[in-house]
Amino acid sequence: MTAVPDVPNTATLTIACPDRQGIVAAVSQFLHNHGANIIHSDQHSTDPEGGTFFMRMEFHLEGLGRARESFERAFAQVVAEPLNMSWQVSYATQPKRMAVLVSRYDHCFLDLLWRQRRGDLNVEISLIISNHEDLRRDAEMFGVPFHVVPVTRDNKAEAEAEQIRLMHEAGVEFAVLARYMQILSGEFLQTFGRPVINIHHSFLPAFVGANPYRAAFNRGVKLIGATSHYVTEELDAGPIIAQDVVPVTHRETPETLMRLGRDVERQVLARAVKAHVEDRVLIHGNKTVVF
Amino acid sequence: MTAVPDVPNTATLTIACPDRQGIVAAVSQFLHNHGANIIHSDQHSTDPEGGTFFMRMEFHLEGLGRARESFERAFAQVVAEPLNMSWQVSYATQPKRMAVLVSRYDHCFLDLLWRQRRGDLNVEISLIISNHEDLRRDAEMFGVPFHVVPVTRDNKAEAEAEQIRLMHEAGVEFAVLARYMQILSGEFLQTFGRPVINIHHSFLPAFVGANPYRAAFNRGVKLIGATSHYVTEELDAGPIIAQDVVPVTHRETPETLMRLGRDVERQVLARAVKAHVEDRVLIHGNKTVVF
Amino acid sequence: MTAVPDVPNTATLTIACPDRQGIVAAVSQFLHNHGANIIHSDQHSTDPEGGTFFMRMEFHLEGLGRARESFERAFAQVVAEPLNMSWQVSYATQPKRMAVLVSRYDHCFLDLLWRQRRGDLNVEISLIISNHEDLRRDAEMFGVPFHVVPVTRDNKAEAEAEQIRLMHEAGVEFAVLARYMQILSGEFLQTFGRPVINIHHSFLPAFVGANPYRAAFNRGVKLIGATSHYVTEELDAGPIIAQDVVPVTHRETPETLMRLGRDVERQVLARAVKAHVEDRVLIHGNKTVVF
Amino acid sequence: MTAVPDVPNTATLTIACPDRQGIVAAVSQFLHNHGANIIHSDQHSTDPEGGTFFMRMEFHLEGLGRARESFERAFAQVVAEPLNMSWQVSYATQPKRMAVLVSRYDHCFLDLLWRQRRGDLNVEISLIISNHEDLRRDAEMFGVPFHVVPVTRDNKAEAEAEQIRLMHEAGVEFAVLARYMQILSGEFLQTFGRPVINIHHSFLPAFVGANPYRAAFNRGVKLIGATSHYVTEELDAGPIIAQDVVPVTHRETPETLMRLGRDVERQVLARAVKAHVEDRVLIHGNKTVVF
Repeated sequence: MTAVPDVPNTATLTIACPDRQGIVAAVSQFLHNHGANIIHSDQHSTDPEGGTFFMRMEFHLEGLGRARESFERAFAQVVAEPLNMSWQVSYATQPKRMAVLVSRYDHCFLDLLWRQRRGDLNVEISLIISNHEDLRRDAEMFGVPFHVVPVTRDNKAEAEAEQIRLMHEAGVEFAVLARYMQILSGEFLQTFGRPVINIHHSFLPAFVGANPYRAAFNRGVKLIGATSHYVTEELDAGPIIAQDVVPVTHRETPETLMRLGRDVERQVLARAVKAHVEDRVLIHGNKTVVF
Repeated sequence: MTAVPDVPNTATLTIACPDRQGIVAAVSQFLHNHGANIIHSDQHSTDPEGGTFFMRMEFHLEGLGRARESFERAFAQVVAEPLNMSWQVSYATQPKRMAVLVSRYDHCFLDLLWRQRRGDLNVEISLIISNHEDLRRDAEMFGVPFHVVPVTRDNKAEAEAEQIRLMHEAGVEFAVLARYMQILSGEFLQTFGRPVINIHHSFLPAFVGANPYRAAFNRGVKLIGATSHYVTEELDAGPIIAQDVVPVTHRETPETLMRLGRDVERQVLARAVKAHVEDRVLIHGNKTVVF
Repeated sequence: MTAVPDVPNTATLTIACPDRQGIVAAVSQFLHNHGANIIHSDQHSTDPEGGTFFMRMEFHLEGLGRARESFERAFAQVVAEPLNMSWQVSYATQPKRMAVLVSRYDHCFLDLLWRQRRGDLNVEISLIISNHEDLRRDAEMFGVPFHVVPVTRDNKAEAEAEQIRLMHEAGVEFAVLARYMQILSGEFLQTFGRPVINIHHSFLPAFVGANPYRAAFNRGVKLIGATSHYVTEELDAGPIIAQDVVPVTHRETPETLMRLGRDVERQVLARAVKAHVEDRVLIHGNKTVVF
Repeated sequence: MTAVPDVPNTATLTIACPDRQGIVAAVSQFLHNHGANIIHSDQHSTDPEGGTFFMRMEFHLEGLGRARESFERAFAQVVAEPLNMSWQVSYATQPKRMAVLVSRYDHCFLDLLWRQRRGDLNVEISLIISNHEDLRRDAEMFGVPFHVVPVTRDNKAEAEAEQIRLMHEAGVEFAVLARYMQILSGEFLQTFGRPVINIHHSFLPAFVGANPYRAAFNRGVKLIGATSHYVTEELDAGPIIAQDVVPVTHRETPETLMRLGRDVERQVLARAVKAHVEDRVLIHGNKTVVF
């Protein structure tokens, strides 16, 4: 887990394609012919016989800033099309544009803001949307636009439309639910059309749904956890990006579980967002490859 | 987690009773009056207002070997009955008598045998019962009686009766299922009438039942775990004693998950058995207090 | 690890005394006679034969607010003096007064401020002292007085005197060095006369002194850590309160080690401060008992 | 961390060379031209500008069994020599030949034997050498030749010569010190001339040398650890392969630290041996790259 070097000539290429011989050779030969130096490379085969092949390559290429278009055009023709690849290139100079949706809990929210300010997350926080006023002052301290879109049983569709409008207007590339206490509709996901990362306060698939700390307390588990995943229509069932747990004892109450959980929630969400931002996460059906 | 000192004059008192003022005072005063020195003490209140109070005290008492009966009789009269206590005293010189039920997997089984031989578990392994011949040689190397009781769909009731007969005959005080691949019937549990500790190869309540590693693989979780619990009639739903997890990645197959899981399974089971053996586990409804 | 209930009638008694029979009985009898209900109790004997006995009891006593003086006077006479105890009582309604000393790194600092605001740390942050201006705005956002006391090679003695003056004036009960990059003199420690908690960015005793991440990188370790300890005259050698580590690989640079380290530093320091604030830490020579 | 598939046509290529553009392209093109399919690939650059480049590729090649010599000859000419590589190919059908040196502690020793029997370690345990008789029966149960070579102050040189003779005779490719309580001389290391892996019972560089648990107890650390490293002439200072820790409290004694340490020692040593056996460890000065 090294940081993406923040230099003008660094980029990350991610690909997914049907597995076959010669993919690494084709890609690395292409990069070499264009004068690129591979900094990191990861690959994964779901099944060498007829499965899917995933690869992520960070590379350095002198003059990349000017040559993007021709580089991408050539890659598409020479490598991607013949090998039937899904692919994309991200440039280190273009931090992804992120929206944060939040309700009243401040821990995940503040942690993301702090990491971005600190330079740990190569991301631009374009805007924050909340259904409550509570965190406005924190947002302002970090200099991020803060929008309140109240959500009630009656206005849910309008509220979601307004949220999407704000995010599209801001050119947001992905959204993070930093303990946002509303369930997004399937229509939201389709209309927004971009990845949404959630943090759920349990080690999924245990304790799906509301009040997982109370459920954990009732079951008498000896560890509690957090799971960050991409949001899909089915509640808490999307592809998992990161998970972690913390040991607990019989002494905990639902309230102290919540307190202990805050530390693991913010840590797991930050890890997932960082992996997403650095193009380390490739989706494969309902699972992820995290390089 | 310090070892129980293996000396003739050391004992452990565990109690559970309705919470009220003055319990610690009553017990510690009683021990002091009898010349006992408290070595360790733990207590837990489920709710200071009308809940249950749990306590575990390790103490040292010169001449305890000879005075057991009178000590226990006095404790019952002076303290336990007035305060409406469930209680028991265990003596360090009397290791608990344990049965191990096992099928073909050797990892949890060998680990328990090794820990007992090493002196880490103050337990006597009275006998091993398996539904297969495979582990006989290992059992014999550690000098423990090994009985094969085959279990089929047709003979389950007879097989269970034979298992219980063997265990009762050997004076077994509790049984451990060290990856024993048969589900015990409710009748078994009632007739055996003593605690049975199981190791389940998932972080319960996730992945109850068969093939949890396959289920974990299918869900794409980023950690796998193991749970040791007391067996009750409902499958994998008994009071949890210990749990732990290990991180995994997209590279794992169901087979490598099994391999990684073995290390955490044997570790968690050993921790649970050790806690039970040292009278650190008190059952409270479907949960445990683990001191 | 349950939170101290924030109620007017709750208090914590901590004692240390020469070990002998009857201490628990004497203390619990005293509390019972005064109508107190013990909520939690922990004890530790360094050596049942002639060692030191440590105990921490959280208790609830109706009307404690008014009865403090008489309660403490009685305890001193009836229990503490006969048993030669060091002891103190802390009241849940009186959060300890803390100073934070910080330089430029914001992670430990912000984490403490956030936890205090969140109600996780029952502490009053009386003031912040820094040798730099950088964190003034953050401090102000949390509403905590921020003082800059520049420290140079030439003014160190005067600077320390000013720091102590500010802290004494504010009635500070203990100080936390949240990555404060100056070594405190022995004179400072003596004159301040109260506990000082530091966070060192290595798993002590490895990598004492400056640049531990660089040293960890050079040694090629596979984990990095953080240690929180009470400050003594000998650099990084005081009693350890809390430690933790995080795994690292060959991919890390000294810079990414610093980034990964920030998460474990802030977590370990918060754990240590919380333990101190809740009177869970008792010092025994150069070691600690942490209940 | 997936297991090496145990098939006749699978091999692992590891290389180290001066970093420059085109290395991945050259190697993957070569493998592609020979009909190989890359299963896993890892690479690491110590410094893209003039550093060292490390790579490990697992590949599958139909008919590899017969084609080894010609494959290796061609690789040397076409790729390795032009790029100035150190390299080697390991074949999945040829498990490495390992010696285990041990004294009296059985935990690391039994764990390695069990993992080999279980199929977790693709290794052949050629022989065991001990300076004591104690573990002969265990060795015999696992069917491994057991040699006793007593070591005294006076016979150390002869004893080491005998150990090396036994290992060379058995065609051993690397040795593991599974808590072998003698320090190997520089002459031993030179004459043996193959890798030696040690397990040290502390988180190095803390507590180098004898009695690390006693030293950990005296310092009052809150975690203890284990480190597996390649042995070099300087005591406990060789390249680290794996490390881990376990949390401890003030309740531990040096004896309970030893007990807790056993679990982490055997786990860390097994992890290091497995990585070595699967050609995942590349040495770089006094550090390791562990793929």
